[in-house]
Amino acid sequence: MDYLPASDVTADIRERASRIRLACFDVDGTLTDGRLHIDNDGRESKSFHVLDGQGLVLLRRSGVAVVLITARTGQAAQKRASELGVEVFTGAKDKRAQVQLLCEKHSVGLQEVCFMGDDLPDLGALAAVGLAVAPSNAHPWILPRTHWQTRAAGGSGAARELCDLILDAQGHVDALLEEWTR
Amino acid sequence: MDYLPASDVTADIRERASRIRLACFDVDGTLTDGRLHIDNDGRESKSFHVLDGQGLVLLRRSGVAVVLITARTGQAAQKRASELGVEVFTGAKDKRAQVQLLCEKHSVGLQEVCFMGDDLPDLGALAAVGLAVAPSNAHPWILPRTHWQTRAAGGSGAARELCDLILDAQGHVDALLEEWTR
Amino acid sequence: MDYLPASDVTADIRERASRIRLACFDVDGTLTDGRLHIDNDGRESKSFHVLDGQGLVLLRRSGVAVVLITARTGQAAQKRASELGVEVFTGAKDKRAQVQLLCEKHSVGLQEVCFMGDDLPDLGALAAVGLAVAPSNAHPWILPRTHWQTRAAGGSGAARELCDLILDAQGHVDALLEEWTR
Amino acid sequence: MDYLPASDVTADIRERASRIRLACFDVDGTLTDGRLHIDNDGRESKSFHVLDGQGLVLLRRSGVAVVLITARTGQAAQKRASELGVEVFTGAKDKRAQVQLLCEKHSVGLQEVCFMGDDLPDLGALAAVGLAVAPSNAHPWILPRTHWQTRAAGGSGAARELCDLILDAQGHVDALLEEWTR
Repeated sequence: MDYLPASDVTADIRERASRIRLACFDVDGTLTDGRLHIDNDGRESKSFHVLDGQGLVLLRRSGVAVVLITARTGQAAQKRASELGVEVFTGAKDKRAQVQLLCEKHSVGLQEVCFMGDDLPDLGALAAVGLAVAPSNAHPWILPRTHWQTRAAGGSGAARELCDLILDAQGHVDALLEEWTR
Repeated sequence: MDYLPASDVTADIRERASRIRLACFDVDGTLTDGRLHIDNDGRESKSFHVLDGQGLVLLRRSGVAVVLITARTGQAAQKRASELGVEVFTGAKDKRAQVQLLCEKHSVGLQEVCFMGDDLPDLGALAAVGLAVAPSNAHPWILPRTHWQTRAAGGSGAARELCDLILDAQGHVDALLEEWTR
Repeated sequence: MDYLPASDVTADIRERASRIRLACFDVDGTLTDGRLHIDNDGRESKSFHVLDGQGLVLLRRSGVAVVLITARTGQAAQKRASELGVEVFTGAKDKRAQVQLLCEKHSVGLQEVCFMGDDLPDLGALAAVGLAVAPSNAHPWILPRTHWQTRAAGGSGAARELCDLILDAQGHVDALLEEWTR
Repeated sequence: MDYLPASDVTADIRERASRIRLACFDVDGTLTDGRLHIDNDGRESKSFHVLDGQGLVLLRRSGVAVVLITARTGQAAQKRASELGVEVFTGAKDKRAQVQLLCEKHSVGLQEVCFMGDDLPDLGALAAVGLAVAPSNAHPWILPRTHWQTRAAGGSGAARELCDLILDAQGHVDALLEEWTR
């Protein structure tokens, strides 16, 4: 996967990442490559990535709450969230309001939240949180309105890159490598 | 997404974009990447993109009529059009004639129409309209017969790039960014 | 689509292309990108491309017989062939023998046949015909055993590039452009 | 396909490849591009590649045992393994233990085993075997913990590149080319 070397991450971004207790992800274009596969019966599918799924699970196990928030409806995001053991909100028209409700539920402040998104419906949430991140393939209007952009594209490891940044900033990487090599 | 910086758009193209009241899009290769996924039961699917869908909705809400015109038949294009709230014509063998009918229906002149397409069946319509656009991955015979080519490929943001050009040329971008950040 | 400029084609290749009366295409990796999408019920699908389909139809209408030859079985290739109005042979274990049978059926010599393929099962047929072509993404053992390689990859316009070469070498391009612009 | 020239392979890697009698492959991200296509009914599919499948069959016919080992469950990997005539273990939580069981079953030592994988769940097996390989798109934590990385990405020929290395190091290539050209 494309990947930003840790040494290229600024101290400010690492500091923001070290505070995260709640990680929220848009779905289409962020956890997928943005494609909607539609068949002749009108059935829709979308493409998630195993690298991203592994990252969300590692993040959750490290104690960070992980939530998927999408304006679209449909079972695909719910299936993926259920498989990964993370929360999901579909049909979310106001993502910023959803993030604020989650802050209350999880008793965290907005500075302890990161949000990753790629298009206009994500702008409100991105403007509110302590770490606003876009995948490399985000709409060009979004990129300058985030703190950080991943090198990987949505659905090809962008979410994993953010998970790894948080895991690294919170000091979990050495233990993970040891656990998995054992 | 790949994206042509606004500063690289010539004054002529911006002027053409500022006049558009009806935006017509070919489907396969333009709103999709041109792939036809066919399974062992003969069922077909194709891949649209959320960035393009968002662009078509923004364009429609800004007052431009949006229409999909495809020579292929099948429910996928109809499902996508219905979801986005735009018109669709499938099985359209003569796209130029279809554009002319739409001009009458919407009471606009051909100089107020843009058409985006990628292959020979689009040439007639492309030759007729005020703004003829091809995605970057169009067939090489088509590219020199258009006014403008997007940097993005079909099904990966090409249509969004055209929508953004029109929204920008018609002065809607600042209001959109303000509305969505609120 | 990626595309080799006509000026980069040697006189020898153009001469070979000018003689073609029968064009045979492998399916997986040649008319598709080689991916086999398999779902949890064991159902398989594969991805053809509209640009390639348009090329096969243009070639057929210009008087060249077009045939798909694949070692795999399954309905996808048959569905695509039927849609394009071309012949198809599935489960073809010996592609060279199949090409020889087709030569008899269509009363053409091997020098009037082109074959496009990407892997070992295509080597026999490639070694027999007047114009042996590989898509750019073919297996590296195949490339040096062909007369020509397209710039486009299989399933992304490689077949169209070969169709266009033949149409151009046989003098059909100007008439096509005129017909479709009308 | 992307491909590392044989001349770029070190003598140490060729020597390791010459000893292989059992070749084990992770599935998602290694034999696929890592994407999980999920539809609105929760049905999942993934994308294998014909070039890889051909390689696994050639390897098996040359006398090397070929096994797919995946932590995920579902029929797709089983369908693909069955089609290629190779063993498969799904739901494998401890891949190193699985490899050790296979060594006993096939009466081979760990130095005669290669394992190809792309993410943390593969680290234990990768650390145990005589030839540890990652596809080019593997997670960046994995790459420095392998002996060799392919130039091709998972699901786009990475497995074939490893098969070819083994076939070449064991002296089978000339006979293969002769057999298939005949």
